[in-house]
Amino acid sequence: MNKKVTFNASILIIGNEILSGRTKDTNTATLANWLNSIGVKVGEVRIIPDVEKTIIDVLNSLRFNYDYVFTTGGIGPTHDDITAQSVSKAFGLKYEIQKEAYKILESYYEPGKFNEGRQKMVWMPQNANLILNPSSGAPGFNIENVFCLPGVPSILKSMLGGLTNKIVGGKPILTLTISLRTVESEIASSLTKVQNTNKDVEIGSYPFFQAGKLGVSIVIRSEDQSKIEDCNLEILKFVKEKNIEVVER
Amino acid sequence: MNKKVTFNASILIIGNEILSGRTKDTNTATLANWLNSIGVKVGEVRIIPDVEKTIIDVLNSLRFNYDYVFTTGGIGPTHDDITAQSVSKAFGLKYEIQKEAYKILESYYEPGKFNEGRQKMVWMPQNANLILNPSSGAPGFNIENVFCLPGVPSILKSMLGGLTNKIVGGKPILTLTISLRTVESEIASSLTKVQNTNKDVEIGSYPFFQAGKLGVSIVIRSEDQSKIEDCNLEILKFVKEKNIEVVER
Repeated sequence: MNKKVTFNASILIIGNEILSGRTKDTNTATLANWLNSIGVKVGEVRIIPDVEKTIIDVLNSLRFNYDYVFTTGGIGPTHDDITAQSVSKAFGLKYEIQKEAYKILESYYEPGKFNEGRQKMVWMPQNANLILNPSSGAPGFNIENVFCLPGVPSILKSMLGGLTNKIVGGKPILTLTISLRTVESEIASSLTKVQNTNKDVEIGSYPFFQAGKLGVSIVIRSEDQSKIEDCNLEILKFVKEKNIEVVER
Repeated sequence: MNKKVTFNASILIIGNEILSGRTKDTNTATLANWLNSIGVKVGEVRIIPDVEKTIIDVLNSLRFNYDYVFTTGGIGPTHDDITAQSVSKAFGLKYEIQKEAYKILESYYEPGKFNEGRQKMVWMPQNANLILNPSSGAPGFNIENVFCLPGVPSILKSMLGGLTNKIVGGKPILTLTISLRTVESEIASSLTKVQNTNKDVEIGSYPFFQAGKLGVSIVIRSEDQSKIEDCNLEILKFVKEKNIEVVER
């Protein structure tokens, strides 16, 4: 699929709990939808364990290949939270107390409650910029093109608002979905023709099963609304010719 | 985290719909839980777009580094389904009609309904072994240590039963979860000690928010039940000393 998008990001999910199947990752969808809305496309996601060498190697590969890297997970107070330390090593930077983060958490917790575990959360790579956390105090951080966010989905979500002005993106990536009461094989060759005459638009075909009936959602993605409209018309043309019902989803 | 597990797998999720945020991946959790139950650990997940070169490059990297690779997605009848062709190229094998698959689908569909789109689904790498599909006919396939499954979660799930006897694993990976009415920072240093004296057990700490209250789930993972029990006792010891409530989740 060809696409013309200027800004590309990768997502690095750090956490044994995803690899073990205990937890389903929802942060990818949250980040991808938000990034698309500010004109950044997600090119790749990697899910890796809480292992320092792996984090360093994968991060160093991603940060040179993408405009932005977003990491999730591993910035809490426990022994398995090793993201900040690993990111420091990946950049060859000192791992030290971020003074602004220290002040934030010192005043966030009641007197005497800013204990050893919590103090761990203010250790970051040297000169890290903070990503403020309106839900639970402990900030994420940014160093060069790498943005480190927590793994808890509700907290991650609450931090994106404060991050938007730090990301330079292109035009928002627009999506149109056409849902049809058909099966993929009925429309495959017609849809291939539409894709072939609109190579810079991303067209996907996804079967669904809803209320006991099969259907197919065709998803058209581009940053250019007029190109989406062109594809839409071409698709609706063959849909009409084939007498296929368009359905709501 | 140290671990002693003989068999490692990686998962390769192929699909623009995951990278765009349209669809949340649930196949990783399904595959990971099933693999853990047959003694295979998931070391890495990669989510990549429907781009032939990317599929070839990533698959060729994974298949030499893991005992097993499981791909999901891209084996349907439409233009964006390019997994079988890409896998053929990755292995340097001919992409051709798999005769057994042809027979299965020819008899699966009503006479005259085995059309061009559907016939695309019987093209596979030369000498591919079929992975039967009890839900919707079209089989997945296996070539060497690579197992190609569909992206639709319910169909993927239905195919794992027939796959179990093709996978050689170690001892099942066992899990014990202890949920506590506390916050991570309260137990961080005690939990670090337990991890340090039990280096070959994987211990994770995950905050949760349930019925308006914060809590922490400690997850202990090992293939050795007695090691899990040892950690459990050590954890329950400090939990009692700190007067922390154990809760059901």
